[in-house]
Amino acid sequence: MPSYHVILVEPKYPGNIGAVARVMMNFDVQSLSLINPCELTDEAYIRAVHAHKILDDATIYSTFKEATQHIDFLVATSAKETLSEKKHLRNPLYLNEFSTQIQQAQGTVGLLFGREDIGLLNEEIACCDVIVKIPTDQTYETMNLSHSVGIFLYQLYLSRVSLAEKRTPIDATEKHLLYDAFSDLLTAINYPTHKTEKTEIMFKRLISRAIPSKWEYHTLMGVIGTAAKRLTKQRK
Amino acid sequence: MPSYHVILVEPKYPGNIGAVARVMMNFDVQSLSLINPCELTDEAYIRAVHAHKILDDATIYSTFKEATQHIDFLVATSAKETLSEKKHLRNPLYLNEFSTQIQQAQGTVGLLFGREDIGLLNEEIACCDVIVKIPTDQTYETMNLSHSVGIFLYQLYLSRVSLAEKRTPIDATEKHLLYDAFSDLLTAINYPTHKTEKTEIMFKRLISRAIPSKWEYHTLMGVIGTAAKRLTKQRK
Repeated sequence: MPSYHVILVEPKYPGNIGAVARVMMNFDVQSLSLINPCELTDEAYIRAVHAHKILDDATIYSTFKEATQHIDFLVATSAKETLSEKKHLRNPLYLNEFSTQIQQAQGTVGLLFGREDIGLLNEEIACCDVIVKIPTDQTYETMNLSHSVGIFLYQLYLSRVSLAEKRTPIDATEKHLLYDAFSDLLTAINYPTHKTEKTEIMFKRLISRAIPSKWEYHTLMGVIGTAAKRLTKQRK
Repeated sequence: MPSYHVILVEPKYPGNIGAVARVMMNFDVQSLSLINPCELTDEAYIRAVHAHKILDDATIYSTFKEATQHIDFLVATSAKETLSEKKHLRNPLYLNEFSTQIQQAQGTVGLLFGREDIGLLNEEIACCDVIVKIPTDQTYETMNLSHSVGIFLYQLYLSRVSLAEKRTPIDATEKHLLYDAFSDLLTAINYPTHKTEKTEIMFKRLISRAIPSKWEYHTLMGVIGTAAKRLTKQRK
């Protein structure tokens, strides 16, 4: 798995740098490099909230070259794209495509974010291995700096963490017991025979989409099972 | 395709509201509601950059109820999750799962974002159809308000580009009739009073995850409604 480094090129507003640090901590990325930044005032620390350490540990560089020469894979981020396929310089990959591909990389990946007003210069983009764009509405593509970083890191986090389902879903036996209980309920309410199969399938599909947890299963069984049993007793 | 409405509950910082407006415009969501907000100062307009119109058109409400009563599907967003499967209230869907499912919905979807310090109250979350969490690193889960909104809208934007199958999902009225029918069933089977509310919320969450179609709704209502009616008659 690659290790990610956020590199801000000449950021102008301390608040943005602080907000970047905070969202880095939200998505477990620690390394921040700053090229010719503004001063890290109190505003930066206020906006960083619990991510002071990322600001304290940030490395400050005076040139683009110094900040990037030790990075294995350099990623330019840009809101602008060229509509001509022939102009490769600003012909981007979309973030969602990129995030899947980059998981296969090893070593250090530097994510370069440009100035708040003019972004990255063409010569800076030319130094990068790839240019990546966040898909946005075309009427307003330029995002706040810390928002761009946040969305980048969210998408990379999603792709790198296999989000093991935290709910424990029901197993095959429980699933079938639940379907059976529902069928018993249909019988108990004298459900029309010609509609029974269709309704059983409907229930199956609905439950499968919801992926019930063990606990939800037991609760549902309690309700459906009790109703079916009482109605059956009533019929006898 | 659903229409999205961003609803901020008692936001405290004008800068955050402005940043939310900007990122809404980035992802082509226009409708902003504010419940008891701070004043929309110059700071809000500065941070909104080109999204002044979203701020000007924002609707201000004084109560949670007023702001949400016309919304078909209410989504609570929260950084907190419960690890216990028995506590349905804060048992979330992850944003990436939710964003795929919600594309099938029609009507209005309200995305509720809580206060910067304490988020949404339990009673506000209980009013929502589903609770959704942005997957984050566990060491620091609380995100800046406008970052949460940005990541939500990015993920929804990505998912709505590719539309899934088109079932016609149930609307707010049908949803509530279904919840009511389930509550009637609980009463009819003498369900323990102290467990009723929890089980009702379980049902709400389960159904919301499955997003039933009109047809599934009518079929389910047929089964649950008939069972409840017969059992009630039996008790008399």
